[in-house]
Amino acid sequence: MKSAEIIAIGTEILLGQITDTNSQFVSEELARLGINCFYHTTVGDNPERIIETLRTAVSRSDLVITTGGLGPTADDLTMECIARAFGSELFLDEEILGQLELFFQSRGYPMPETNKKQAARPVGSQTLPNNRGSAPGIIWALDRESLKAKKLISSDAVYGSSATSTIVTFPGVPHELKHMWSDSFLPFLVEKIEGDTIYSVELKHIGIGESSLAEKYAYLLEGKNPTVAPYAGRGECRLRVTAKAKTKEEAAKLVEPVVAEISQKSAHLLYGKNRETLEAVVGELLVKSGKSVSLAESCTGGLVSKRLTDVSGSSQYIGLNFVTYSNQAKMQELEVPEDILEGEGAVSAACAIAMAKGARKRSGADIGLGVTGIAGPDGGSDDKPVGLVYLGLDSDKASLTKELKLGNKSTRSEIRYRTSNESLNMIRLHLLGVEEN
Amino acid sequence: MKSAEIIAIGTEILLGQITDTNSQFVSEELARLGINCFYHTTVGDNPERIIETLRTAVSRSDLVITTGGLGPTADDLTMECIARAFGSELFLDEEILGQLELFFQSRGYPMPETNKKQAARPVGSQTLPNNRGSAPGIIWALDRESLKAKKLISSDAVYGSSATSTIVTFPGVPHELKHMWSDSFLPFLVEKIEGDTIYSVELKHIGIGESSLAEKYAYLLEGKNPTVAPYAGRGECRLRVTAKAKTKEEAAKLVEPVVAEISQKSAHLLYGKNRETLEAVVGELLVKSGKSVSLAESCTGGLVSKRLTDVSGSSQYIGLNFVTYSNQAKMQELEVPEDILEGEGAVSAACAIAMAKGARKRSGADIGLGVTGIAGPDGGSDDKPVGLVYLGLDSDKASLTKELKLGNKSTRSEIRYRTSNESLNMIRLHLLGVEEN
Repeated sequence: MKSAEIIAIGTEILLGQITDTNSQFVSEELARLGINCFYHTTVGDNPERIIETLRTAVSRSDLVITTGGLGPTADDLTMECIARAFGSELFLDEEILGQLELFFQSRGYPMPETNKKQAARPVGSQTLPNNRGSAPGIIWALDRESLKAKKLISSDAVYGSSATSTIVTFPGVPHELKHMWSDSFLPFLVEKIEGDTIYSVELKHIGIGESSLAEKYAYLLEGKNPTVAPYAGRGECRLRVTAKAKTKEEAAKLVEPVVAEISQKSAHLLYGKNRETLEAVVGELLVKSGKSVSLAESCTGGLVSKRLTDVSGSSQYIGLNFVTYSNQAKMQELEVPEDILEGEGAVSAACAIAMAKGARKRSGADIGLGVTGIAGPDGGSDDKPVGLVYLGLDSDKASLTKELKLGNKSTRSEIRYRTSNESLNMIRLHLLGVEEN
Repeated sequence: MKSAEIIAIGTEILLGQITDTNSQFVSEELARLGINCFYHTTVGDNPERIIETLRTAVSRSDLVITTGGLGPTADDLTMECIARAFGSELFLDEEILGQLELFFQSRGYPMPETNKKQAARPVGSQTLPNNRGSAPGIIWALDRESLKAKKLISSDAVYGSSATSTIVTFPGVPHELKHMWSDSFLPFLVEKIEGDTIYSVELKHIGIGESSLAEKYAYLLEGKNPTVAPYAGRGECRLRVTAKAKTKEEAAKLVEPVVAEISQKSAHLLYGKNRETLEAVVGELLVKSGKSVSLAESCTGGLVSKRLTDVSGSSQYIGLNFVTYSNQAKMQELEVPEDILEGEGAVSAACAIAMAKGARKRSGADIGLGVTGIAGPDGGSDDKPVGLVYLGLDSDKASLTKELKLGNKSTRSEIRYRTSNESLNMIRLHLLGVEEN
């Protein structure tokens, strides 16, 4: 399977009522498997447009993945449209029907009549089990020459070496899709992958911009196998190292020395790989070092605390955090001296470090971190513009401050998020024993 | 403009490295303007596929919106592909070049040579200013009959009444896109909309499920003009009321009585309209009532505080919040009695209300809110499963608790988000003087 595409089916996506996160999940999985995904298409609950989209996809891609439209209601049209698009008919699969009845029984009520529809699938297809919800999916390998002969796809359709295009359906509910993907579909897919495969590793950097990263590794960006490409993210940058080979193992062997080289050269600018998050990396370092942390947040209003506690098991290193939004709270809870607030002001390095010391003292944690700044859109001045933020970190080893200028054209949400990134990174660097300039 | 579609350009989306939130934003805006969006397509940085996608879009839709691919690097191909797709050429727009130079001057450094590329646009197009970044966009009305004659789009192309298809380009950076949309494009678009227009209002509900909402308003769901449709969101439900008419005013007149009827009947289940967020609604109620609030969060780890402070100006009603993750912190900071923690345990109604009282006392706020529960995936037991959460609210008027059972199949992130929704709603109902059962 050399090429794939994803079709998301649902009017609610076209109306902007939901974000389609499924296409991202599936894309990431395909990239990991070395399957090139060339298109995402979203189409509404309209039979003609769904059928047209399905036919175009099957005529140009070896693997077509659909999400959504498998529910029990009248506007769930995926199965019906697949059958019509490729000259088949729906039949009621008694085995699925039995499973559906069991599924509803296990939830303590009889199967509603409308759900019967979910047991129908096109003649010729295989079922793809769904252990988390009521709608199973299908896998159906379609012979493209025969579709051409029946004039169901264009006679001009150009595709690679594969005579078949495989269509696979998933429900639109993200957690059902994810479980079906790993439980039911992945075992099938891994077997099917023939010929060249791709292996890639993503190296996540913080504290260096996209252009500096590209410059630092300019000599690698020209490589062909593996390729190295930089991507900018929200407050971070990634280098993706990708190799092609006959097997995943051979591809991995091409990738590894480059990953090792970058890891060494990037040193502390590299915080993690692939799906590792900054908050999880900080959490691991805290666990390893046996240290605890306490936060005193002003402008981020709890975001740093929220991110650190997104990690399951974070109670090992977090006991008590403060959101001290008012000056009163900074003085009362964290013992920030009144003359700092009246002199340098609440948005100052002196206040940030005083907050860090106060949080550490109050909580008894090993590390205290203070965050204070102007998230905007209001509250800025010539002297202290929106986006000016101070971080302070206090421990028995160090007492550090950092000034951030995050730009007065950024949104409140961006300034807060980037501040939370910098805060987490400050803790990370401290735990690594790296002295920031 | 009766039909539109959106093309997102960028390999990083097809690799699953970023979520395409732009298509959702644009879709929501188009829906609001009554323009039907029939497709989203994502295509990578590949000239042939971009050109093919552009031609298909122009042949079937009156308005084609592209996002991404306007940057200065070699893989930013949007302008070049548009010129090639529709038989034009790029030229260097001296005016844009001047603006680009000024943009970089204002940032304190000279324009890099590579950015010169961003001043190029197809002969025949108009520019669409971008006040937030370096890449401007274009608006280009294409005559479809002439494209057919030049064999640039299929001679079979079927489109509605409009002889032209208008292509508009936006950068991929979300905040630049949003500003360009409202500052530069919206004024242009509103003028262009002819014929039938749609007006719709979204009524955001909390505390009622999708099926109950659909049942309550079953008699409205069958209406044709306006139509009423329910949509489930994350911990909330929306009813969308949409009418068609010759003008926006006439459509609004059809929508208003239905909105009024639902507003009255839903009463406190309706928390807001359209883009109003729960945190902003709570903020407004706090400002109106002159009340302040203090949070004591355990399982949400700062998420409720983060959401309340997402709202600019929230310092009017928030001074001090606590994240008391450990029992020690609950006792020390909030004076939660040790026998509650040893008897009922930290996940109990008694602990939630004690946390609320403690936060209120410590902060001096009018309202205290305590949140404690098991966010999972670990830490659950038969007695207290993952997803069991208690909320406590304390003020001079009331002392309330609420038990939530959010399901042990939900993810940590879902449990935390839904808990934050319920927390905000508990404050809202209290401020409205609604007694919860």
